[in-house]
Amino acid sequence: MKRGFETAEYKARVKAAQLAMQHHDLAAILLTTEPEVRYFTGFHTRFWESPSRPWFVILPQSGAPVAVIPSIGEALMRRGWIEDIRTWSAPDPIDDGVSLLIEALREVAEEGRIGVPSGMESHLRMPLADFGRLQAAGLVFGDDAGIIAQLRAVKTEAEIEKIGRACAIAGRAFDRVGEVARQGARLDTVSRGFQRLLLEEGADWVPYLAGGAGPKGYADVISPAGSQPLALGDVLMLDTGAVWDGYFCDFDRNFSIGVPARQMAQPWSQLLEAALAGFEAARPGAEAADVWRAMASVVGGGETAGRLGHGLGMQLTEGLSLTARDHTVLEAGMVITLEPGIETADGMMLVHEENIVIRDGGAQILSPWASGPMPVL
Amino acid sequence: MKRGFETAEYKARVKAAQLAMQHHDLAAILLTTEPEVRYFTGFHTRFWESPSRPWFVILPQSGAPVAVIPSIGEALMRRGWIEDIRTWSAPDPIDDGVSLLIEALREVAEEGRIGVPSGMESHLRMPLADFGRLQAAGLVFGDDAGIIAQLRAVKTEAEIEKIGRACAIAGRAFDRVGEVARQGARLDTVSRGFQRLLLEEGADWVPYLAGGAGPKGYADVISPAGSQPLALGDVLMLDTGAVWDGYFCDFDRNFSIGVPARQMAQPWSQLLEAALAGFEAARPGAEAADVWRAMASVVGGGETAGRLGHGLGMQLTEGLSLTARDHTVLEAGMVITLEPGIETADGMMLVHEENIVIRDGGAQILSPWASGPMPVL
Repeated sequence: MKRGFETAEYKARVKAAQLAMQHHDLAAILLTTEPEVRYFTGFHTRFWESPSRPWFVILPQSGAPVAVIPSIGEALMRRGWIEDIRTWSAPDPIDDGVSLLIEALREVAEEGRIGVPSGMESHLRMPLADFGRLQAAGLVFGDDAGIIAQLRAVKTEAEIEKIGRACAIAGRAFDRVGEVARQGARLDTVSRGFQRLLLEEGADWVPYLAGGAGPKGYADVISPAGSQPLALGDVLMLDTGAVWDGYFCDFDRNFSIGVPARQMAQPWSQLLEAALAGFEAARPGAEAADVWRAMASVVGGGETAGRLGHGLGMQLTEGLSLTARDHTVLEAGMVITLEPGIETADGMMLVHEENIVIRDGGAQILSPWASGPMPVL
Repeated sequence: MKRGFETAEYKARVKAAQLAMQHHDLAAILLTTEPEVRYFTGFHTRFWESPSRPWFVILPQSGAPVAVIPSIGEALMRRGWIEDIRTWSAPDPIDDGVSLLIEALREVAEEGRIGVPSGMESHLRMPLADFGRLQAAGLVFGDDAGIIAQLRAVKTEAEIEKIGRACAIAGRAFDRVGEVARQGARLDTVSRGFQRLLLEEGADWVPYLAGGAGPKGYADVISPAGSQPLALGDVLMLDTGAVWDGYFCDFDRNFSIGVPARQMAQPWSQLLEAALAGFEAARPGAEAADVWRAMASVVGGGETAGRLGHGLGMQLTEGLSLTARDHTVLEAGMVITLEPGIETADGMMLVHEENIVIRDGGAQILSPWASGPMPVL
């Protein structure tokens, strides 16, 4: 499978953003975060792990995007399709790209408003003091009217293929969990071993892995693995966001250690039933809340896990939430997780997760769909 | 080695922040990013990979910190030392913790100014629109006077031990690179294999890995590995930020593929000499710029790689930069990288990196110090 995207795809994304900018009367949009920058430019590096340098991309209402970036990124940005690349030697304690950015923004938005993603899930990845300098220079900022988030929510076939590949990689790694997890193995050792399996099966890297284990489930689904050994009868849960070419899968699997966890059989079959109900409800035109309701009606008190699924793509979670409160209307091309959770006892829970893509006729499975009894290791 | 820190250490961090807040007349500091929150609370999860939910911690000028967090994080936060934990069911499209946060901030800063980290490397991890709501509620924000960055720059012994352990893990993995890298191997396969080695040697996870290879070095040090096979005579560079218990190492190693890369011998020995010069210059009282100068005088045109080192700790890069412009004065307890780079030809470069901690008498090595000819695989 080819890495990256055709230039035509990036141009189509820019064009779609520009149409929306005309509609919302925005002279430009300023992008500062990794997924926003990558979505339009293809600039792909793990170097965002370093907080030292800000990176800027300007989408003008018409014309080509402008990258205003640290010189350390120039060679990589030049490998992509962006032609207008302006650099400075960062980090600069006196002027960390601010003058350069002001100049570039003035060229395209001397008069008009500049949109900045400001809604849910967004943040501005630059020092607040520097943002203040942009404002003091007379530039006028407002929110981006949700344009970027809405564009990113509907995936192209090329994006869906990458997510599908990440799902397939994780699926093969889950099939091999028995190689690293057994009674007596420490959970943190299992966690390291499972990351190794994901890499062996083709993941580029493993940004996210959570794990939990216990006779009645686990207290949460976000903790890193502790050092407790797996005991006979425990349920082991591993939840991964593995990445291929910058796109995530996000699903978990549960396993019984040594013997079938008998008290888990009932909640487990409820989770499978809930996932299926979610799958059937996930069609174009349905609201996120409808899919939530389909699952919540099976698991009852379904908000234990916070929400019962979410959008997925360049980030582990992005876009809509399967909650009672989210009225986003599903469209073909949206990729989401179905993540029903159920309280088992004493604040312990069992959570199951699958990944699907919305198609015209209904949903299509991306992760290997779990069925039958919980697998025993 | 024990994970986490004693409660006394967290309390000392809070107390030090509070003393500085008194000095700068700040009623409170609002923290929103992963390292800031973890530094004071010990809250440690890879769940920050999900952008869906904001997390807040308030340090009042006196009294205990207040965590205002999504309920999905409550169980994990309760395992730590923070007692005042307030939660909401996130994500909430109508009010995503904002009212709860306003209420908590009013309790401690009804009158005074609230500091927010606003200087270099910082960002505010919450939607701008929600930050606007805090301001509209009459709360007054300003920068944090660099308090948080200054505190984090000087490490405790417990922190230094964790960084040292991450360095040792990477050192053992680098010793085994020959198991995954040889002539004909694809660079992306080598990259996956090296991540596996890091995990086998004890890394909790591998947030950062860059790789480059070529007969004259590589064009940059931030690109992900491509699919080209290693050729006889290539130099292979692997640069990793592996993590143990939330602390990074950050150093690279260069290898000759098959035969010693003869045209690299001279620049390679210059890099080793530069690292040594940096090591000797890195003493309490010296400026970051002095250490830069010591290395730049050896490699000449030393800014090819942007900067010749940086602070290191809970993030891959943090704090000071070894550049001509950074006049930060070194103190005992600071952990930094020495990262001399040299242009070899045609825009290609060779970069070498080591990690050290500043001690009263001078620097101490944390990464296994490279010497002698470039190792041949």
